[in-house]
Amino acid sequence: MERIEQHASFGGRQEVWRHASSCLRGDARFGIYLPSAALRGERCPVLYWLSGLTCTEQNFITKAGAQEHAARHDVIVVAPDTSPRGEAVADDPGYDLGQGAGFYVDATVAPWSTHYRMHTYVAQELPALVERHFAASEARGIFGHSMGGHGALVTALREPGRYRSVSAFAPIVAPSQVPWGEKAFAAYLGPERAAWRAWDAVELVKTAAPRWPLLVDQGEADEFLAGQLRPELLVQACAAVEHPLTLRMQPGYDHSYYFIATFMGDHIAHHARALRA
Amino acid sequence: MERIEQHASFGGRQEVWRHASSCLRGDARFGIYLPSAALRGERCPVLYWLSGLTCTEQNFITKAGAQEHAARHDVIVVAPDTSPRGEAVADDPGYDLGQGAGFYVDATVAPWSTHYRMHTYVAQELPALVERHFAASEARGIFGHSMGGHGALVTALREPGRYRSVSAFAPIVAPSQVPWGEKAFAAYLGPERAAWRAWDAVELVKTAAPRWPLLVDQGEADEFLAGQLRPELLVQACAAVEHPLTLRMQPGYDHSYYFIATFMGDHIAHHARALRA
Repeated sequence: MERIEQHASFGGRQEVWRHASSCLRGDARFGIYLPSAALRGERCPVLYWLSGLTCTEQNFITKAGAQEHAARHDVIVVAPDTSPRGEAVADDPGYDLGQGAGFYVDATVAPWSTHYRMHTYVAQELPALVERHFAASEARGIFGHSMGGHGALVTALREPGRYRSVSAFAPIVAPSQVPWGEKAFAAYLGPERAAWRAWDAVELVKTAAPRWPLLVDQGEADEFLAGQLRPELLVQACAAVEHPLTLRMQPGYDHSYYFIATFMGDHIAHHARALRA
Repeated sequence: MERIEQHASFGGRQEVWRHASSCLRGDARFGIYLPSAALRGERCPVLYWLSGLTCTEQNFITKAGAQEHAARHDVIVVAPDTSPRGEAVADDPGYDLGQGAGFYVDATVAPWSTHYRMHTYVAQELPALVERHFAASEARGIFGHSMGGHGALVTALREPGRYRSVSAFAPIVAPSQVPWGEKAFAAYLGPERAAWRAWDAVELVKTAAPRWPLLVDQGEADEFLAGQLRPELLVQACAAVEHPLTLRMQPGYDHSYYFIATFMGDHIAHHARALRA
């Protein structure tokens, strides 16, 4: 573990750490915002942010404006990278597969299966590390954007006991049914669509427990809304099993961090209520 | 004038425009945040942000978190680029001279004098453009960071009737006395130090009127504090002429946008009080 950045921010500290990840089989980086309470040694709940396609750990920590709200609620916010990285790691020329596009699954197909284990990294290895090295309690929430919104929903639905709260910005809710997900899942999981169900929020929600209230914000001017995101599929799936969902369609908002920053305060408040309950 | 970006943000809109600048003799870009009141056509005061070395118009609009506060106070915020740009524009291999480092002066020495007229651009051409094309009132404030903090102080002190409020984050207060300023002024203004005084806040404040209260935030962990920024020189100069100055030394804070974002709300509130008085 090596701290490679630290900046005072809203009375706490934004840091970036590099560490050797056993499940990714290489170096990994994550951002962590430590509110002042955590710096004083008080154990704080931890909110995990999963970023979208092409992002590293930097996009969220520089653009989302989360620190102000994390400071107000005394919540730690952890933002991992979106894939394994490095010359030894398989890649693809497309922006939507390979490095920067791990899709938060554990790949089962070569060459991806060697390093692409972002699900286990996010759900197991990273929380264990955070809870060992920082003043973190075991109260965990998870949220994310686009590919990372998919990641947040799927991670929480697969490991319901590990999270107290879940939300998403413009998530890919049904990767099995849209081009981004079909391309990634075919590569990481193989052509058998039956295997994809275990990584698809619209499928997983059918049998999910416990039933945390989901908060989802979606911009109506999002250029990926109809082709890749399709929130109506999550609405239908949740309605069928009476899973509580608040989907807020936001007129005029696009897919950018300007959209994310605008509603970040609402999301962190949503998580803080559950994490501190 | 061509709008090249627009994003809904905190109920208003963050836009980026490109236009042909007569005083820079080439294309220029600026970011503009329009709060909802301005989008409805109500004339709002305008706060000009001047960025630091290496920045374009993007750094501030993506990292400073200003939109939330501008929306709350119904203030337009305009962020120009830090220099003229393009293949025809003189440049230097250093990060602290030439493109990305205009220092908000009107250069008098070749080859810089052809395009490097950022003072006139910021103080005259850009406000005229903004007040013609947007729902902007003539109530203007100005603030900035580092090289842009110098720019904000100097622009306001040179054109006191044009601004109602001034503030700065980690400004270069005495460019004539520090390496960044000595290098830039020698290039843009020539070796005669007498000519530099007209572009140095510590010199200009000696004869300044009117006496707006200056707000300056400075991080104590700023790596450029002792070598380039030297706020004590501004304190002495203001004390000598009883110019009101609030200098807040912020323990632990560095020179980054994490520092800027933390105190952005205070600065926009400071300006809004004067601009709406």
